Amino acid sequence: MSFRTEHDTMGEVQVPADKYWGAQTERSRNNFKIGPEASMPKEIIAAFAYLKKAAAYTNTDCGVLPAEKRDQIAQVCDEILAGELAAEFPLVIWQTGSGTQSNMNVNEVIANRAHVLQGNKLGEGKTFIHPNDDVNKSQSSNDTYPTAMHIAAYKMVMDVTIPGVEKLRDTLKERSEKFKNVVKIGRTHLMDATPLTLGQEFSGYVSQLEHGLRALRNTLDHLSELALGGTAVGTGINTPKGYDVKVAEYIAQFTNLPFRTAENKFEALAAHDAIVETHGALKQIAVSLMKIANDIRMLASGPRSGIGEIHIPDNEPGSSIMPGKVNPTQNEAVTMVAAQVMGNDVTISIGGSNGHYELNVFKPVMAANFLQSARLIGDACVSFNDHCAKGIEPNYDGIKKHLENSLMLVTALNPHIGYENAAKIAKYALKENKSLREAAIGLGLLTNEQFDEWVKPEDMIGGLK
Amino acid sequence: MSFRTEHDTMGEVQVPADKYWGAQTERSRNNFKIGPEASMPKEIIAAFAYLKKAAAYTNTDCGVLPAEKRDQIAQVCDEILAGELAAEFPLVIWQTGSGTQSNMNVNEVIANRAHVLQGNKLGEGKTFIHPNDDVNKSQSSNDTYPTAMHIAAYKMVMDVTIPGVEKLRDTLKERSEKFKNVVKIGRTHLMDATPLTLGQEFSGYVSQLEHGLRALRNTLDHLSELALGGTAVGTGINTPKGYDVKVAEYIAQFTNLPFRTAENKFEALAAHDAIVETHGALKQIAVSLMKIANDIRMLASGPRSGIGEIHIPDNEPGSSIMPGKVNPTQNEAVTMVAAQVMGNDVTISIGGSNGHYELNVFKPVMAANFLQSARLIGDACVSFNDHCAKGIEPNYDGIKKHLENSLMLVTALNPHIGYENAAKIAKYALKENKSLREAAIGLGLLTNEQFDEWVKPEDMIGGLK
Amino acid sequence: MSFRTEHDTMGEVQVPADKYWGAQTERSRNNFKIGPEASMPKEIIAAFAYLKKAAAYTNTDCGVLPAEKRDQIAQVCDEILAGELAAEFPLVIWQTGSGTQSNMNVNEVIANRAHVLQGNKLGEGKTFIHPNDDVNKSQSSNDTYPTAMHIAAYKMVMDVTIPGVEKLRDTLKERSEKFKNVVKIGRTHLMDATPLTLGQEFSGYVSQLEHGLRALRNTLDHLSELALGGTAVGTGINTPKGYDVKVAEYIAQFTNLPFRTAENKFEALAAHDAIVETHGALKQIAVSLMKIANDIRMLASGPRSGIGEIHIPDNEPGSSIMPGKVNPTQNEAVTMVAAQVMGNDVTISIGGSNGHYELNVFKPVMAANFLQSARLIGDACVSFNDHCAKGIEPNYDGIKKHLENSLMLVTALNPHIGYENAAKIAKYALKENKSLREAAIGLGLLTNEQFDEWVKPEDMIGGLK
Amino acid sequence: MSFRTEHDTMGEVQVPADKYWGAQTERSRNNFKIGPEASMPKEIIAAFAYLKKAAAYTNTDCGVLPAEKRDQIAQVCDEILAGELAAEFPLVIWQTGSGTQSNMNVNEVIANRAHVLQGNKLGEGKTFIHPNDDVNKSQSSNDTYPTAMHIAAYKMVMDVTIPGVEKLRDTLKERSEKFKNVVKIGRTHLMDATPLTLGQEFSGYVSQLEHGLRALRNTLDHLSELALGGTAVGTGINTPKGYDVKVAEYIAQFTNLPFRTAENKFEALAAHDAIVETHGALKQIAVSLMKIANDIRMLASGPRSGIGEIHIPDNEPGSSIMPGKVNPTQNEAVTMVAAQVMGNDVTISIGGSNGHYELNVFKPVMAANFLQSARLIGDACVSFNDHCAKGIEPNYDGIKKHLENSLMLVTALNPHIGYENAAKIAKYALKENKSLREAAIGLGLLTNEQFDEWVKPEDMIGGLK
Repeated sequence: MSFRTEHDTMGEVQVPADKYWGAQTERSRNNFKIGPEASMPKEIIAAFAYLKKAAAYTNTDCGVLPAEKRDQIAQVCDEILAGELAAEFPLVIWQTGSGTQSNMNVNEVIANRAHVLQGNKLGEGKTFIHPNDDVNKSQSSNDTYPTAMHIAAYKMVMDVTIPGVEKLRDTLKERSEKFKNVVKIGRTHLMDATPLTLGQEFSGYVSQLEHGLRALRNTLDHLSELALGGTAVGTGINTPKGYDVKVAEYIAQFTNLPFRTAENKFEALAAHDAIVETHGALKQIAVSLMKIANDIRMLASGPRSGIGEIHIPDNEPGSSIMPGKVNPTQNEAVTMVAAQVMGNDVTISIGGSNGHYELNVFKPVMAANFLQSARLIGDACVSFNDHCAKGIEPNYDGIKKHLENSLMLVTALNPHIGYENAAKIAKYALKENKSLREAAIGLGLLTNEQFDEWVKPEDMIGGLK
Repeated sequence: MSFRTEHDTMGEVQVPADKYWGAQTERSRNNFKIGPEASMPKEIIAAFAYLKKAAAYTNTDCGVLPAEKRDQIAQVCDEILAGELAAEFPLVIWQTGSGTQSNMNVNEVIANRAHVLQGNKLGEGKTFIHPNDDVNKSQSSNDTYPTAMHIAAYKMVMDVTIPGVEKLRDTLKERSEKFKNVVKIGRTHLMDATPLTLGQEFSGYVSQLEHGLRALRNTLDHLSELALGGTAVGTGINTPKGYDVKVAEYIAQFTNLPFRTAENKFEALAAHDAIVETHGALKQIAVSLMKIANDIRMLASGPRSGIGEIHIPDNEPGSSIMPGKVNPTQNEAVTMVAAQVMGNDVTISIGGSNGHYELNVFKPVMAANFLQSARLIGDACVSFNDHCAKGIEPNYDGIKKHLENSLMLVTALNPHIGYENAAKIAKYALKENKSLREAAIGLGLLTNEQFDEWVKPEDMIGGLK
Repeated sequence: MSFRTEHDTMGEVQVPADKYWGAQTERSRNNFKIGPEASMPKEIIAAFAYLKKAAAYTNTDCGVLPAEKRDQIAQVCDEILAGELAAEFPLVIWQTGSGTQSNMNVNEVIANRAHVLQGNKLGEGKTFIHPNDDVNKSQSSNDTYPTAMHIAAYKMVMDVTIPGVEKLRDTLKERSEKFKNVVKIGRTHLMDATPLTLGQEFSGYVSQLEHGLRALRNTLDHLSELALGGTAVGTGINTPKGYDVKVAEYIAQFTNLPFRTAENKFEALAAHDAIVETHGALKQIAVSLMKIANDIRMLASGPRSGIGEIHIPDNEPGSSIMPGKVNPTQNEAVTMVAAQVMGNDVTISIGGSNGHYELNVFKPVMAANFLQSARLIGDACVSFNDHCAKGIEPNYDGIKKHLENSLMLVTALNPHIGYENAAKIAKYALKENKSLREAAIGLGLLTNEQFDEWVKPEDMIGGLK
Repeated sequence: MSFRTEHDTMGEVQVPADKYWGAQTERSRNNFKIGPEASMPKEIIAAFAYLKKAAAYTNTDCGVLPAEKRDQIAQVCDEILAGELAAEFPLVIWQTGSGTQSNMNVNEVIANRAHVLQGNKLGEGKTFIHPNDDVNKSQSSNDTYPTAMHIAAYKMVMDVTIPGVEKLRDTLKERSEKFKNVVKIGRTHLMDATPLTLGQEFSGYVSQLEHGLRALRNTLDHLSELALGGTAVGTGINTPKGYDVKVAEYIAQFTNLPFRTAENKFEALAAHDAIVETHGALKQIAVSLMKIANDIRMLASGPRSGIGEIHIPDNEPGSSIMPGKVNPTQNEAVTMVAAQVMGNDVTISIGGSNGHYELNVFKPVMAANFLQSARLIGDACVSFNDHCAKGIEPNYDGIKKHLENSLMLVTALNPHIGYENAAKIAKYALKENKSLREAAIGLGLLTNEQFDEWVKPEDMIGGLK
């Protein structure tokens, strides 16, 4: 590999000759060999591209950056957003906790790439765009990184999480309505209970996801606040007048999301409660998904020795020995995602609680965990939707068998033959391992026709939807 | 101790002669000797009193309970709410996960207490009010316990958590405004940075608590949904028409809180996402409090060898040896509470994710952890407010010393003597352990008067509030 | 209530006239009204009694405390250990994070109680025993509280946790051996799989608890290290020569546990990794218990519409309507305990990670969570053992039904009729909802006798125990 | 991209023409588009290579696999271990929870690669090595994946975690000894306290890491147990006699680690308590690292307005404005890693607690989180060691200033001028903002020489090391 020499205030650094990054990025690469390379989420890099472009536009509007520089910066930002410079961001999550080095990575790549776009050779001559003086103008790592966190987080929630959860919610709702007349046994404490419809059972899942989405949306107002304009400690030193409001407007325009400048920049640098808040809602959705995916795999268990009340799609070959073995693999992926998100929530809370004075320095770990959770929930919901939920069908035989076997239905006989006789039937059925019908007829208390007329689970499912 | 004999469907049970509880409560006492006695939160018992009274009123309105029975039930409920029967609820959190046994405890106590109020002797004769047929009418443990959870949780949040956090928020806001002209050094990465005012620093704490309160209030709509009316599995079997809506109205009336019947009762029994959701907001506030209390104790550290920029009240004798040692004990209580709440959040999430089919059976552990968190946050905020925050004062000497010593202020000289000369001053000051002023004058680059004129931290704190 | 006036270095305090505690305890009561009164675990108070007595003995041996004072201190410590002064320790967990105020509470109670034991009236005259100069001699809160934590934690683990887990382990082992010939269907992914014995299934639970106990014991060496002798910052200032070693020996003697002085006192004050370590093992056991209790309730589910392979004891009346409904209430208590312990682990880890310089000030919250976990695990294991595990019996009908229905057994036919014919049987059986036997005979591929001879699940359970 | 057609029992699948993987891998790729591609840890793939090779050797020894096939399988395994087939494992963590699809991925790649190594073209003709019948012989996903988990986890702990922690421990020990005579002020509650040496302070960190390493090693015995030989449900169906013991011996031989077959295979498939246990120790180390890294950055804070008692290396340019600003970036990376590990512990505990019947299906998420934690701790310790700990130096000026300013040293005057006069000095010093020396002399109570003679912090640091 060949290298070129770059300089910073501490001296010379050897940088891979064909890379746009500069001295500070290279120092970080060498000083932080922790975990796999380039683990800083690419969504953070994209968010930086939005904000660097917005800052350039605002700086020009405020009269502190020539339009020519603005346009060059914007051009490279657009390239980053198009994914064309993906190999230029080698840094890891486990760097300085302010994300300074990734901010500098972006600054350096923009300056050098602009240099090349102007027809120069990388590393030769002075760049027209200066990474600090131009790209980072009116900014500090301390306000850019948290801004990038909010942009990346908000976008991921809107682009991946919410559509994914909504898709699953819609399918479960459609299933719920389709199953609205499928009467089945209920279970509490895992034990047989009074009946309900399969549609009612699924409506509970729909309601969980509905509430989860509402909770998630409730948090977005806080997440829409941007730190940019606070610079080093939140006072906004070195920013032109009106910069903070305007730069947020540009970011809102470029991302098409309702960002606005944070009312209090001191909080926005020193704490990341908005990340804690929105991730709390993601965690709530994870909790719901754990319940839903777990229920569905229990309902589908069998094919012979389980609960067996629904069929789920068969996506992969089961055992070559055992026909009919459909493993609930999508449910397993979803529940693993839920476990991950619940752990990530702890990481984020610990990070969020440990800010000191004017700066929280757990920014990258909070960002990475948030983005992972938001991505995984969205992706897992789509996967579960497409490969499992859409294909769920009642196993009518299984449902019927459990419903008919249930001793609980004896309740329906109370008005006709009295509680005592009804109880006699139930006890006899349990003891002799008979169905209620067999027991009732066997004891000579009912005829077959009377049983059909009186024991109607569909009358026991209440007036609730 | 003397006993009386009580019966249930499994046979006879010996119950302490002077206690109102009955056979099922006593069985639970004997079968669940886990942890200290009577750990079921008293707020849950009070919530049951509200709901039993509301159920009685609704049942009478629906024509299924005589008004006389309603009034007797209501009378005992009022006694419970007045705290008069506190010794009658001996059960623990670690019982059946549906809380059935605490529901029965309340039913039994109401029936037996009414019996005595009617002039009978406890244990003699048949009670006029039947624990199941009357007190529990149109109810199931499966819908009463989650209803009690929401009532107790909502009340605690309104009565204790929000007022406590608001009180602290108000004090910090008042302090922030009082300190708005106290210019001090900023710190990022724990290292000296550009200045801000002490008021700005405190405004960040205010903003955190503001956002936390907003997040908490955002969750209350979900928490206002009541499961009551769902009975055994959510279908509402055995409830009269209109019961669910009306009973929620009575509860709202009795508690003066905006409860309403849950749109989906299946979710309300099988999942407790509302508890997960609101506790997520409590956890966010805990995260904020950890940051705030930690900052304040660091700022107050010393008296000689710490940061020493603020004074906090001295509430207890420090060491008999060392005058002036004020330990930040209130901050320590607050940060311990924060750690507790962050752990409780995990317990609640695990509980919430593990519902099965039609019922979640982690109800008591979720309720107990929620109520502990909500209580502790409220109480800790009041304690911290009264014994610490209200008395915070700037340590002007410490603030001045740090500000004057700071090398960061050299930035202000750039326009006057150039970056190079400014840097020379800073480096010389650091190396020779001098103040900027000493260094500047020592190097012959400035006069004392020029230093005074040009180096004004108060001009470096931005236009931001 | 009447009061007496007590003094400390900050002035006068009104203390309830009949209480042994003094000014510093009373100040703490007033300054920390957070959560319920007297929440400081009583095991911590008992541990203080052991250590105060040991310190008195050591001080006398070292020639710094008259034997007469030693004996008076020891006498009150014995009263505390006998539980006679339980009402004298009103302080809460949420006080100073060093537990100083509970240390002073103990010092004050000992001094005042000794005063009364000498025939004096409480509050009249000067006490012969001085709370600081005598009871606290050669000590600091900073080394006494962590010592009390280790004593209380170790004792609870030995007295409650280990015996409880062992009891359950023994019962499950006995059950496992009793069930060693009960062949049943296995389940992976919740789906039918190849058979095993019920004894093998239970042996996995035994192995989990065995490993858990081993893990727990592995941590005790660290927990046996005592901070006492480190005094204020770990240097042991103000202790006589040899004090630290000797005081640990006395504590070991009085508690009959293998305590020794910590090799490094700086760690012992500033960090509580031993608490983190042992609680990690408690958490592991909680994880095991969640799995075990969950499996057992799933295996017992039914009675008709669940898995129904085992019977568990019926401890409480089920529904008055549905005979045979046995709710797995003990399992629910155990799984709630597991959720609590998993959350407590997070609280303890956060507390443990937040020590500053020479002192960790999350001591009381760490102690309280540890003791709760250790108590709950032990108690829950005993409760689950006595009221559930001991009475578990196979449901032979259910086991047989599932085993015979299983399509998985077709594997045994491969050597006799070839894979293709075997698969034909299995697919036909699944499609037509027949048993393997019915399908095999129905397809004319086997006789009834051949099926009996060739399809023997007991030959499919391997040579493993 | 061109494709070839592969088959499995469900039909045809189009696979990228140049990839060695087959139908089942491709189905998984398509069915689990969750998060970034190829997230299944590469260490798991390497562990599979060890175990597939060991299984082949054992199968041959047991007479069920021809030596020729063994050697071909082993050859490809060696290629995998050499990293030559890294692009052939595209699957994600979020697949089936048994890791079946990654097991099949390895099986398919081995079979197809062997086919090509024999001179055939990929996709043409029947492979000599069959993925199921040969590569997977005597195995099931259910025992291979947990075996791979233990191999990968154990190796990572030995290769990365322990060496990393030991390296840091050694450096801190060396620093501790170097600093053994540097007397400095102690701090408790963040407040000034009695002195200790910097070496003593650092010895606490050493002791924490020592105990952490011991705790970690204590867990390895459980981790050395391998599930292999348990096959589908733990009974070892389809394995030749002696296979389980021998295959573990081969794995031990190939990895040079002390693996042995698990005594109880039912636990080994259905629970992953060994992973929970060892990760508990990793979490303990994370807790220690949080404390250590936090202390060091607080001690290094400044350069002017912080604690400033140590210097840490300057690895990156600080602000271009402020000379001397060294951000504790390595500490920030370490504390972020600690937060990550603490969250991962929750994910692992949740995963571990949720096994059902004969199989835990949270295997991949547990493996991935474990490996991340073990890697990050090791890497972060090395990074922190090389770029921070090794270069820590006392800031003698800062230490001296704090020590001399401390009012705590007044204690030393008690024997000479009495407590009352000493207290007078301290109070006067605090009030008048003077040093003890100034106050003592100013009050006329001491001469300068007496102060020098009597106030010797080095006599206050005790006899403890």
